[in-house]
Amino acid sequence: MTKQPTLGFIGLGLMGKPMAAHLLKAGFVLWVHNRSQVAVDELVAQGAHKASSAKEVAEHADIIMTCLPDSPDVEACVLGENGILAGAKPGLIVIDHSTIKPATARHLAAALAERGMHFLDAPVSGGQIGAQNGTLTTMVGGDAGALEAARPALEAFSKAITHIGGPGAGQVAKCCNQMMVAAQMAAMAELLILARKAEVDPQKVVAAIQGGAAQCWALDNKPQLLFAGNRQPGFKAYMQVKDMGIVMETAKELGMPLPATAANTQLFNAMMALGMQDLDNSAIVGVMEQLAGVDLL
Amino acid sequence: MTKQPTLGFIGLGLMGKPMAAHLLKAGFVLWVHNRSQVAVDELVAQGAHKASSAKEVAEHADIIMTCLPDSPDVEACVLGENGILAGAKPGLIVIDHSTIKPATARHLAAALAERGMHFLDAPVSGGQIGAQNGTLTTMVGGDAGALEAARPALEAFSKAITHIGGPGAGQVAKCCNQMMVAAQMAAMAELLILARKAEVDPQKVVAAIQGGAAQCWALDNKPQLLFAGNRQPGFKAYMQVKDMGIVMETAKELGMPLPATAANTQLFNAMMALGMQDLDNSAIVGVMEQLAGVDLL
Repeated sequence: MTKQPTLGFIGLGLMGKPMAAHLLKAGFVLWVHNRSQVAVDELVAQGAHKASSAKEVAEHADIIMTCLPDSPDVEACVLGENGILAGAKPGLIVIDHSTIKPATARHLAAALAERGMHFLDAPVSGGQIGAQNGTLTTMVGGDAGALEAARPALEAFSKAITHIGGPGAGQVAKCCNQMMVAAQMAAMAELLILARKAEVDPQKVVAAIQGGAAQCWALDNKPQLLFAGNRQPGFKAYMQVKDMGIVMETAKELGMPLPATAANTQLFNAMMALGMQDLDNSAIVGVMEQLAGVDLL
Repeated sequence: MTKQPTLGFIGLGLMGKPMAAHLLKAGFVLWVHNRSQVAVDELVAQGAHKASSAKEVAEHADIIMTCLPDSPDVEACVLGENGILAGAKPGLIVIDHSTIKPATARHLAAALAERGMHFLDAPVSGGQIGAQNGTLTTMVGGDAGALEAARPALEAFSKAITHIGGPGAGQVAKCCNQMMVAAQMAAMAELLILARKAEVDPQKVVAAIQGGAAQCWALDNKPQLLFAGNRQPGFKAYMQVKDMGIVMETAKELGMPLPATAANTQLFNAMMALGMQDLDNSAIVGVMEQLAGVDLL
């Protein structure tokens, strides 16, 4: 594209709103749509154009980003009544930043390809703070040429953009990311409560082990919050549970077991049963408190 | 102690031999004993005195370090015929660097306390490379005064020495360390093979996720070896299996479950069944290759 593309953004939640704001700051013309109007009004005040549907966004935009809760939301937004395809022009690039099933991403990529359009799956890692600071890690699956055309826009909120492979590959990478995050959180929960149950100070244990082979993002970032009694998100447990569902369903489709990830997933599922769904994913330590009959603090 | 203590070292294996060599380099008088004489001769050539039994080491030493395979070995070395107690003087400090059961460490600490002696459990993290470079992380349980008396000796091979708590607390910290190591290794194995099975390049996945919330020691250090076809230790799988046995037995004694660690332990157990016991612990990816019917490379 010789002139700067006109952009659209659909889904202005905790992640999408700050990502869209970065696009405005970078000087792009941006059409926005969201179920709730509060976020729309905020972005309009920053220079965005308001659209009343995904279809209307598509009537204006060359590149549309979506950031929605789950696979059915993205499918409806792209294929549904008043959805993106209903208003799209040939050459459109849709970039989905949601975490959805790799199979759904492949399906949507095929549907758009039939119309002469591109769908990139581009889930992000880095959380709300990464979105606000414009330092997200973006994992992209789909056509490499479409990614290059969209890269200047993605750079407005990404510190790293990696082309992983064909359609769905970005979502596979996100699955892998969430598998490791879940493993760290579950192991942290178990070891903190093992120490407590053995009457050994968990803070001293963390201080002793976090500099060696046990070093990880979870032990670097979460214990000080847990020891301060803070289990607020961060990244909500029910979103971790949703992502683990995608991981386990993907493994099933691939015809392979994930014995360790399955156990970690069960512990996150217990957070739902125990009413901890709106706490941070590190609050999985609360499940171990229940199982061991002892409090961390 | 006003004069520099005379030291003893029993167990000159992959870890013990370089640790003992650091004590000699630091100028300590050192008596050594080992089942195999090759390592003894090497250290004698570096200035150590040779003892024919643990008892003889104890007849000379004020502080004795042990670095042995498992709990029964340490018990026999301290309490057995021709063991440390048979030759020990009051005031002796025994520092056990082996990874053994916290309950065994508490038992030995009590036995020595009755005789006016000290037993410190002081397992280390950092592996053979840490022992060679003198940069081990040392986690200590037991009497704080005894640790202070021994600290100058421990500093010869440690970059960090943390007093965790009373007898057994060092071993509890080591349990916690191994729980997190096992979680990282198991998750890494599963995610690498999930990517491969999904026909996505595992190297690109690792590159994309290792800078975010999935960051950990395992992803930082092991994939480049695995991608190069190198599964040699490092830290041998059967030692990881031994340590996981200590973790699971300790949890059982404490009356608590470890659902995630149990699943990780099972995957390491499979390494034994598959003849992978002498490979690096990261070679757990080989178990996932078997379970998924696909090779990493």
